[in-house]
Amino acid sequence: MTRRLMVATLTQAGLKLLGGNVSGQWGSRGQQLIHHCSALVYREHTVNIDTVRIEQLPLPVLSKHSVRVKMLAAPVNPADINMVQGTYPILCPLPAVGGNEGLGEVLEVGEDVITVRPGDWVVPVDAGFGTWRTEAVCEEGDLITVPKDISILGAATIAVNPCTAYRMLHDFHTLTPGSTVIQNGANSAVGQAVIQIAAAMDIRTINIIRDRPNCGEVVKELQALGADYILTEEEAMSGLQRVFQEVPKPKLGLNCVGGISGGLVLSNLDYGGTLVTYGGMAKKPLHIPAKSLIFQNITLQGFWMTQWKRNHRQDKAHLRSMLDSVCELVRLRRLRPPNCIQTPFPQYTQALDATVQPHQSKHVLIM
Amino acid sequence: MTRRLMVATLTQAGLKLLGGNVSGQWGSRGQQLIHHCSALVYREHTVNIDTVRIEQLPLPVLSKHSVRVKMLAAPVNPADINMVQGTYPILCPLPAVGGNEGLGEVLEVGEDVITVRPGDWVVPVDAGFGTWRTEAVCEEGDLITVPKDISILGAATIAVNPCTAYRMLHDFHTLTPGSTVIQNGANSAVGQAVIQIAAAMDIRTINIIRDRPNCGEVVKELQALGADYILTEEEAMSGLQRVFQEVPKPKLGLNCVGGISGGLVLSNLDYGGTLVTYGGMAKKPLHIPAKSLIFQNITLQGFWMTQWKRNHRQDKAHLRSMLDSVCELVRLRRLRPPNCIQTPFPQYTQALDATVQPHQSKHVLIM
Repeated sequence: MTRRLMVATLTQAGLKLLGGNVSGQWGSRGQQLIHHCSALVYREHTVNIDTVRIEQLPLPVLSKHSVRVKMLAAPVNPADINMVQGTYPILCPLPAVGGNEGLGEVLEVGEDVITVRPGDWVVPVDAGFGTWRTEAVCEEGDLITVPKDISILGAATIAVNPCTAYRMLHDFHTLTPGSTVIQNGANSAVGQAVIQIAAAMDIRTINIIRDRPNCGEVVKELQALGADYILTEEEAMSGLQRVFQEVPKPKLGLNCVGGISGGLVLSNLDYGGTLVTYGGMAKKPLHIPAKSLIFQNITLQGFWMTQWKRNHRQDKAHLRSMLDSVCELVRLRRLRPPNCIQTPFPQYTQALDATVQPHQSKHVLIM
Repeated sequence: MTRRLMVATLTQAGLKLLGGNVSGQWGSRGQQLIHHCSALVYREHTVNIDTVRIEQLPLPVLSKHSVRVKMLAAPVNPADINMVQGTYPILCPLPAVGGNEGLGEVLEVGEDVITVRPGDWVVPVDAGFGTWRTEAVCEEGDLITVPKDISILGAATIAVNPCTAYRMLHDFHTLTPGSTVIQNGANSAVGQAVIQIAAAMDIRTINIIRDRPNCGEVVKELQALGADYILTEEEAMSGLQRVFQEVPKPKLGLNCVGGISGGLVLSNLDYGGTLVTYGGMAKKPLHIPAKSLIFQNITLQGFWMTQWKRNHRQDKAHLRSMLDSVCELVRLRRLRPPNCIQTPFPQYTQALDATVQPHQSKHVLIM
């Protein structure tokens, strides 16, 4: 009775969610509803993530161009929490299903669908899919296949962080074997992917990490991933002369912290280098002296994977090529899935609660 | 006797100055010295600019490829002072003649010289020429001609500030008629050139000026140059909603101040805009929030005319085209020479002393 009531309420609300991929989930008058799914739904934007509740939603019947997918795994990323809280630059119309990243297996396809087949593994092309659910019906164009010979966790976490690392290493400077990259937040999911993808490209990484009690452990972990140099912020402050006796100064710096840590990346760039910012974990602005821009010819840019995917939405070959490259690294075990805590879908509150805390391992919902 | 002694001392020192254009001035053993010049020479880098002294220097005889020039006028720019003080990123080997910008008239050319003729007006191609002197002998390639139908002051001050404005308006975004540019330091020499060149391109300027007692006067002056919107920093802090009801948000922002003022330019840029920094008058860094880079897709770059000229040293056509365009605007009276104080060359100390003070009019030495 509760379930039936919920469906009725959502149907009557007649609200549209962002993207064709999600809107159909609420059903519409007159459609023959066959399947249902469980989904983590939020009906308002608030810092209190307890408002995210599991709900039963109807799935529309398949059209000629749509696809029914069973979700296998979906991470809980900080950006997902920001979307729930309403502080992210893109928001889904409410009510909405949470989650932007995840792996699904195709169950059923409409008769005109050509790019995916039942049994294929797929990931969403765009943010706003609402991956925290057991099943979804969406347009074929909303999905792209990934190979099935990598792990579920590897596939479920590939489309945001490793792809961010991949793009930043390819799109801002032509890096050749032996050249260097410097980054802060080196222990973040993207930072770890940067280390591994750079190592596969024969590019040296200079990695700055937060001063923390378990520094020794982190250093060992990052070395195991292929990090060439690892320094705490404090060590980096006293200069990288030793490093630059061995390797050239980097043309590319990656910053996900800001504040003093961002300044450490900036001040160690080579003439004409680029500082790419993709996060602001310290919640403090970068301080940029004029001379860095004028006399060191440094360029500052930002990178946002969501925007990149939107800019290349009509250019699936570009997305395909990136995913193939990154999946190949996973297959070769040169790119490991991040350390993550697997959480059964019904215990989703643990995953959400952990993600709002700082410096937690990534949680992945297993459906 | 004093003059002869000085010549001898310099010759014996055997020191080389930066650039072929200057080195010959000190003479060398065995050359037949015919002409002499008066020059403002510094023999050490110190904040005390009293160490700049007028000296008599010998000029070498003309070679097949060299040119003798009579200097007509040379501004004293803040960068010249920084070079004397040793705080500029490029420095001339000591002893050196001060001054980087200025107008000369060709007196004599070597037999193989083809690009300039006696009577031509010329300006140096590169920084480090040492323009504070009455005459110079240099290579033909160190000079480029400017038309003689503009004023001496216009020609003497064209190669740095108006060219900086010209390049920044052309090289970072494709600006079309009706589009907007925002800048701070709008009353600086470059700022005034930006206003006028933009007006000639039918581009609207949003100009931020320092809060100051004579704001009304400055506003009138900038309006007379063609400024569309003029706001003090305080006015800009309360938002530019009124402005953006009338004109589109700017894709290009120009910053020569830094600190809060630079932030005002940054925060009013359109999505995907570029903030170009060419100065740091406030001696305070820019504060850049991560979201401006990531979600607003703002790019930060620097511009330095000296570097641009060096990058294009082999590409005289590019320099020619820029100078022709800027001189044409001067000829059409769409670009006025900056308000400046003309100082007879022997009274050079007045010009130097004034330039180390903040917010002074530009001083131009008249030879």
